[in-house]
Amino acid sequence: MISETMCRLGKHRSVIREIFEYSKQRAAEIGAGNVFDFSIGNPNVPAPDSVKAAVRELLDTQDDVYLHGYTSAQGDSETRRAIAEDLNRRFGTAFHENNLYMTCGAAASLKICITALCVPGDEFLTFTPFFPEYRVFVETAGAVLREVATEPDSFQIDFGRLEAAVSENTKAVIVNSPNNPSGVVFRKESVRRLAELLSVKEEEYGHPIYLIADEPYRELVYDSSLEVPYLTKYYRDTLVCYSYSKSLSLPGERVGYILVPDEISDAGDIYAAVCGAGRALGYVCAPSLFQHVIAKCAGQVSDLSVYKKNRDLLYRALTDYGYDCVYPDGAFYLFVKAMEEDAGAFCEKAKKHELLLVPGDDFGTPGYVRIAYCVTTDQITRSLPAFRALAEEYGKL
Amino acid sequence: MISETMCRLGKHRSVIREIFEYSKQRAAEIGAGNVFDFSIGNPNVPAPDSVKAAVRELLDTQDDVYLHGYTSAQGDSETRRAIAEDLNRRFGTAFHENNLYMTCGAAASLKICITALCVPGDEFLTFTPFFPEYRVFVETAGAVLREVATEPDSFQIDFGRLEAAVSENTKAVIVNSPNNPSGVVFRKESVRRLAELLSVKEEEYGHPIYLIADEPYRELVYDSSLEVPYLTKYYRDTLVCYSYSKSLSLPGERVGYILVPDEISDAGDIYAAVCGAGRALGYVCAPSLFQHVIAKCAGQVSDLSVYKKNRDLLYRALTDYGYDCVYPDGAFYLFVKAMEEDAGAFCEKAKKHELLLVPGDDFGTPGYVRIAYCVTTDQITRSLPAFRALAEEYGKL
Repeated sequence: MISETMCRLGKHRSVIREIFEYSKQRAAEIGAGNVFDFSIGNPNVPAPDSVKAAVRELLDTQDDVYLHGYTSAQGDSETRRAIAEDLNRRFGTAFHENNLYMTCGAAASLKICITALCVPGDEFLTFTPFFPEYRVFVETAGAVLREVATEPDSFQIDFGRLEAAVSENTKAVIVNSPNNPSGVVFRKESVRRLAELLSVKEEEYGHPIYLIADEPYRELVYDSSLEVPYLTKYYRDTLVCYSYSKSLSLPGERVGYILVPDEISDAGDIYAAVCGAGRALGYVCAPSLFQHVIAKCAGQVSDLSVYKKNRDLLYRALTDYGYDCVYPDGAFYLFVKAMEEDAGAFCEKAKKHELLLVPGDDFGTPGYVRIAYCVTTDQITRSLPAFRALAEEYGKL
Repeated sequence: MISETMCRLGKHRSVIREIFEYSKQRAAEIGAGNVFDFSIGNPNVPAPDSVKAAVRELLDTQDDVYLHGYTSAQGDSETRRAIAEDLNRRFGTAFHENNLYMTCGAAASLKICITALCVPGDEFLTFTPFFPEYRVFVETAGAVLREVATEPDSFQIDFGRLEAAVSENTKAVIVNSPNNPSGVVFRKESVRRLAELLSVKEEEYGHPIYLIADEPYRELVYDSSLEVPYLTKYYRDTLVCYSYSKSLSLPGERVGYILVPDEISDAGDIYAAVCGAGRALGYVCAPSLFQHVIAKCAGQVSDLSVYKKNRDLLYRALTDYGYDCVYPDGAFYLFVKAMEEDAGAFCEKAKKHELLLVPGDDFGTPGYVRIAYCVTTDQITRSLPAFRALAEEYGKL
């Protein structure tokens, strides 16, 4: 009688949300300090001081009606101009405000992009491991998500598999680098080959194949020598989906954008379709106060040193204890091989040690678990004996 | 190649947004003070002082990570509890936090509700005049919107037409009272008859017919003796969609809710489907800072005296000048008969007097224009000669 799909999506919450809720309940039972929740990518580093200062300054100096009023559907002009300038400064690009459409965060950016592009029969490709909500966004838009397995252990692109997966039905390829859940960054060489392959396929099929760069973790890389290629510079038909959730530690405020470069195929229609999809999905505008904050703080980043410290501490300890883990370049996740075939069963055993980990099955990579280390360093230090005990249980130590 | 529907929705912006953009352009040309923009329902009354105080208090006392962090998908518990308590206090109901799902405003509330309920073949009914985005939300969810004409002049429900329109395909009836664009409030007697009719039809067809109460204007009524019936008390299968855009003058901040009462048919499934639809549409949570503000300010209302003053001033002047207008009980719109058959042509003539009005065609009521009086009283006073001159042009004075 009502939508079964929506009912099912509501009842079977994402595994991550499910564990997040369990964690709150468990914390109430045994005290928050005794639960080692590594389930959710909720930044634990505060927003930069400049964000708080910007909010106060706006409250002090701006008219309420302006501050909390509707912006244009595509977003406040000044905000979009500030973002374009920041991108141009950092990447040597030439974007302008009309390349940008402000959104309520990365999920909205992706859903709007997919809805704008999608016609029945379309396929969207993505590389494993991938953020499980991609499947929800693509399938409820009436398209098909195809998973393309990456190189084992490195999680870099397997071009043989990619070539086999691309077809005339391919509308877009979704790339998430730095990656959730593996932390892996696609190298420049990989990106070049990806661009080449897609260009050849565009020619072969006679229609654009878009690259959707899902980039909430762009700034979260910890080795200063590592460059995260800016995809619009490598491949013409690239759309960028961005969110300030991680870079400015504002996940609850729901603010991000879609970038539609001028040079993309059918740029005018794509931008219009993005506006249309935002409208059809019920997004009137991105939250206004935080749009105005972004106008002042675009390009700034929270203090990432905690994440780097956490990564190093956890990666070293876990590899010491016998865990097998790809080296995470960025984001704030470790993606670790479960110590038995069934990652779900492994997570259940971890739970007995009050370690809350997320099985990799929904990320398209069974046999792995995700550990979100955007927690206090203290939590990590205190959790190490539990990780050690878990490894011992599996005879690793 | 890309979605034609989305492209069309993006290119043909809502008439209201179109005029809003023209207004900004015209203001740049001749000065904002010389354009009488009555096109958009952007409250001009500031948020109550308590809202600003709440934001400051939260910034001063709360941990950033909590303040700007994700809430549960259904919304912060404390916020939902505060809303339930406020509703119970005002309407003698018995709601609790788990009846509420926080959203990014009224458009999101409606889109999520419609998506949650909708299966192919479904019809949604609404009464003319109606907010034109209903059509967008319903049609892009794969259902059909049927307009039910109301009584001429009063815009109250025409029960003969309603009965003829309800069929076994009717999934829901959308009611918007106080109404955008007419300002009309459905009277208690009408609501009782509506509830009776739908109950009979539910029985006849053997399935629920939901009432969706779209209530962003609930608090905006200007005659203290007028009661706006709370629909859950009259009809069991009622869902309420609410937004703080108008009552707290926070339209840009995108915060509202969906209320799913316990007693509604399939309440558990409906609430799950609401959660599922929110997830599928890319809504992760409603903006967190303003959720926390609502926890402190639920039930408060901006100073409405300006709207009342504006309504009285404009209604009296326009009826004096020979305009024909239904008496607006609430919201902040006058719905006025165009002085020629074609409301679009009438609006073009008004534009020559720098009066920006919205033709009623998209509201399902050709021959009318909407005047949003959520502007300064000064703008109204200064615009009166233009309204007078327009009436004179039509030989009314």
